[in-house]
Amino acid sequence: MNSSLINIGDELLIGQVVNTNAAKMSQMLGAAGIEVTQVLTIGDDADAIHNTLRKCLETSEIVLITGGLGPTKDDITKKVLCDFFHSELYENEAALENVRRRMEAFGRELTDINRQQAWVPRCCTVLNNPLGTAPGMWFDTQNENAPHQVVVSLPGVPFEMVGLMENEVVPRLREAFHTGHILHRTLITQGIGESFLSDLIEPWELALPRNIRLAYLPQPGLTRLRLTARGDDPAILQQQVETAVQGLMQIAGQYILCDGFDTLSEYIAHTMTEAGLTLATAESCTGGALSAQLTALAGASNYFVGGVVSYSNEVKESVLHVPHDILATHGAVSEPTAIHMAEGVRRHLHADYGIATTGIAGPGGGTPEKPVGTVWIAVASAHGTVTRKLSIPRQRAQVIEGACQQILGLLAKYLKERK
Amino acid sequence: MNSSLINIGDELLIGQVVNTNAAKMSQMLGAAGIEVTQVLTIGDDADAIHNTLRKCLETSEIVLITGGLGPTKDDITKKVLCDFFHSELYENEAALENVRRRMEAFGRELTDINRQQAWVPRCCTVLNNPLGTAPGMWFDTQNENAPHQVVVSLPGVPFEMVGLMENEVVPRLREAFHTGHILHRTLITQGIGESFLSDLIEPWELALPRNIRLAYLPQPGLTRLRLTARGDDPAILQQQVETAVQGLMQIAGQYILCDGFDTLSEYIAHTMTEAGLTLATAESCTGGALSAQLTALAGASNYFVGGVVSYSNEVKESVLHVPHDILATHGAVSEPTAIHMAEGVRRHLHADYGIATTGIAGPGGGTPEKPVGTVWIAVASAHGTVTRKLSIPRQRAQVIEGACQQILGLLAKYLKERK
Repeated sequence: MNSSLINIGDELLIGQVVNTNAAKMSQMLGAAGIEVTQVLTIGDDADAIHNTLRKCLETSEIVLITGGLGPTKDDITKKVLCDFFHSELYENEAALENVRRRMEAFGRELTDINRQQAWVPRCCTVLNNPLGTAPGMWFDTQNENAPHQVVVSLPGVPFEMVGLMENEVVPRLREAFHTGHILHRTLITQGIGESFLSDLIEPWELALPRNIRLAYLPQPGLTRLRLTARGDDPAILQQQVETAVQGLMQIAGQYILCDGFDTLSEYIAHTMTEAGLTLATAESCTGGALSAQLTALAGASNYFVGGVVSYSNEVKESVLHVPHDILATHGAVSEPTAIHMAEGVRRHLHADYGIATTGIAGPGGGTPEKPVGTVWIAVASAHGTVTRKLSIPRQRAQVIEGACQQILGLLAKYLKERK
Repeated sequence: MNSSLINIGDELLIGQVVNTNAAKMSQMLGAAGIEVTQVLTIGDDADAIHNTLRKCLETSEIVLITGGLGPTKDDITKKVLCDFFHSELYENEAALENVRRRMEAFGRELTDINRQQAWVPRCCTVLNNPLGTAPGMWFDTQNENAPHQVVVSLPGVPFEMVGLMENEVVPRLREAFHTGHILHRTLITQGIGESFLSDLIEPWELALPRNIRLAYLPQPGLTRLRLTARGDDPAILQQQVETAVQGLMQIAGQYILCDGFDTLSEYIAHTMTEAGLTLATAESCTGGALSAQLTALAGASNYFVGGVVSYSNEVKESVLHVPHDILATHGAVSEPTAIHMAEGVRRHLHADYGIATTGIAGPGGGTPEKPVGTVWIAVASAHGTVTRKLSIPRQRAQVIEGACQQILGLLAKYLKERK
C-alpha cells in the first residue's frame, strides 16, 4: 500500500517557501507503515490540481493534499475537489462551529469570508481543525466496483497540517488500511558519521527480525536511529524491540546519548527536572537558537533559569564578566573564552550547570587559523568545566544547528555519566 | 515557456532530508523569467525516473533533474537518462580531468569508482562541476521534427547544484529560450486578519492588470502579500508593480510594515544597519527564539549586540534589574515588567533600542485574568518606551512565533515612523 503527496501553492513553485510539509508528512506516514512513492508540488491552478490528482489515483491507494484552503481568491483546492468528486458545497455545522469558536477566541467578528471556510463538499468527511479555520476533508472511494482509495485535503499551514495528521488522518488511515500495531523507539547517536555508524552496526541490522525496520535520521550534529516494529501483538513487539536495543547498546553504546527520547532537549529537560538541577546558557554564535530549543518544550521553567546571548564582546565582558585580556589575547572564538562564558553564566544566573557556545557561523568572519565553522563549546558545573572544539565547515544555518546539538550532546553525556 | 523539476532521492521520500533544492532552483529560474509549473520528488527507481521524465516532457519545454549521480549502487539517474535518450556511456576527458583535479586537491588516489563519475551519455553536453566529481549533463532535443526541449541533470548536493545553475544552466537556458521577465514584490502586513485584509483590498485586487497576480502568505503574527508580474519589458513591469503597490498603500498602508523584504528580520537588519543603530533583546516567553531569528541572518553583528533570556524572575531581577516589587505587585506578565525588561536590557547592554517579551506560552500557567497566550511586548529607545498587549490563544509554538513577529512588527513600525 503506497501513497502520493500533492503540495499546492504558488509560493512553493517560486521558491519563496521551502516545502517542509512533504518531509514531515513522509516521516509521519512512514512511522505508520505507509510508504510515500512520490511528492508533487504544483501551483494554485485548477487544471493542474485536477490532472495531478487523477494521475496519482492511477498508482496510489492514498493521496494526501495540502494547501489552497484559505479564504482568499487564490485558494481553489476545495472547489476543484468538489468538481473532481462530482459533489456540491454546503455549510457544515461542525466546521462552522469551529470557525465561530476561533473567531470568538480572537475576539473577532464572524464575517462571510470566515463562514466560507465551513463550506465543504457533501461527499467528504469533515476532519476538525481546532488549530485553524479550514477543516480537513476526507474523501473515501470505497465501493464494490473500485479498489479502496482515500483522498485527504489538509491546510498548508504546517502546524495545522501536523495537528490534523496526528489526530485525524494517521489514525483513520491505519484503521482503513489495517496497518496493524506499530512500535517505535528512537535512540540518539553522536560522535560518529552516518556511514561509519552504518558499517559498525551492519551485522546487528542484518540480524534484526523481519518485522523490525531501522531508519537513519541524520541531522546537523547527530544521527537518530528509529526502530519500527510491526505486528499484531504489542507485548511481543515490545520484547523484540527491547532485545534489539540491548544488542545495539553492546556494539555502539558509546555513541548512544539517550534512548526513548526524540530530541536531546527532551532528554535534558527530563533528566535535569528529575534530578532537580538548573541550567543557564551563554550563546555567541548560536545567537539564541540553543535557548529557543530548550524553551520550545513546555515545562522548561522547571530547570532552565535563563541565558545570555553575548553576541558582542562588550556583552561578553559586561554581562558574563569574561576578562578583557582573555578576549584580547585569545579572541572571542577560543577555549578560554568558552570556559569563562560557561562559568560566568553559571555563576551570575545562579544555575547548577552553565553551557556556552562561541564560534564563527559565517559566511564571513573566517580566517586561515579559525575558518568558518570553528566553534568552541563548554559545560560548567560544580564538578568543573569540560570543553570541545568543533569544526563544521557548512552554511550558517548548519553551523548554528550543529553547534546546538553538539553542546546539548556534551551536556547529555555529562549528565549520563554523573548518574 | 515553462519548466518542471524532478528531485530524485529515497532520502527525500522518507522525510530524512527536506527538499531545499526545489525552492532554490525555482528562485533562480523565476529570476530568469522561467516559470516552474511542477516539482516532482521521486525515489532512486529506474521506472519512476523514466516515466516521470516522459510525463514532464509532455507539458514542459525544460526539465531539470537533481540527484542520483553519486558513485554508489543506488545512484542510477545517469544510466536511466542514457537509456531514455538511446545513447551510450563513454569516458569524457574534461569530466575525468575535473575528477582528477579534485582528487589531487584532497590528496587522494584516483580510484575506479572516481573514474566512473567521468562516464556520461554521448548525446549530452557536459557541464563542468568544479565543486564536485559528478558533472552536469545537458540534453538538447532541438531538431526540425520536434519542438525545442531541454533536459538537464544535476548533482543533488545543494552547493554543487547552485554552482552549476549559476554558471552553466541558467545562462544557457536564457540563451536557448528567449525568456520573458518575472518580477516579484513582497509586502508584510500586520494587525489585520487574512480574511479582513482580503475584504479590504478586494476592489484593488480585482483592478490589477491581468499580468499581475496576488498571493497571500499568512504565518503566525503576520500576512505577506506577494505580487508577481510577467511580461517582456522589465521597465514596464517595474512601473506596473510600483503603481499597484501605491494603490495598495492608499487603502491598506496602515497595515503594511515593509515593502521589498521577505521577513521582518531582514527589514530590521537592513534599516538599523543603514541607520547605524544597535539592538538588544530581553526575552521571557519567547525564550531565545527572537534573538535566534535576528542572528539567523549573516551580518547580524552589525546592529545586534546581544540579549538576555530572563526566563526566571531571579534573572529578570539580577541581570535586567527589574525591581523586585514590580514583579511582586504586577507579576512577570505585565506592562510594567515588560517596560523594565526593555529599558533594562537597553541600558545594561548599551544599545540604542531594547525590545522585550513576557507572557504565558502555555500549555500550563494560564489564569482567568491572564490566560495562555497573554503576552506583553515593549520597545524602549531614547525616545521613550512603547508597549502592546497581545492575546494569542494558540499552541505554545504559535504563541512564541506570534510574539516574535509582533515585537518585530512593533519595532519595524517604530523605525518606519522615526524615518
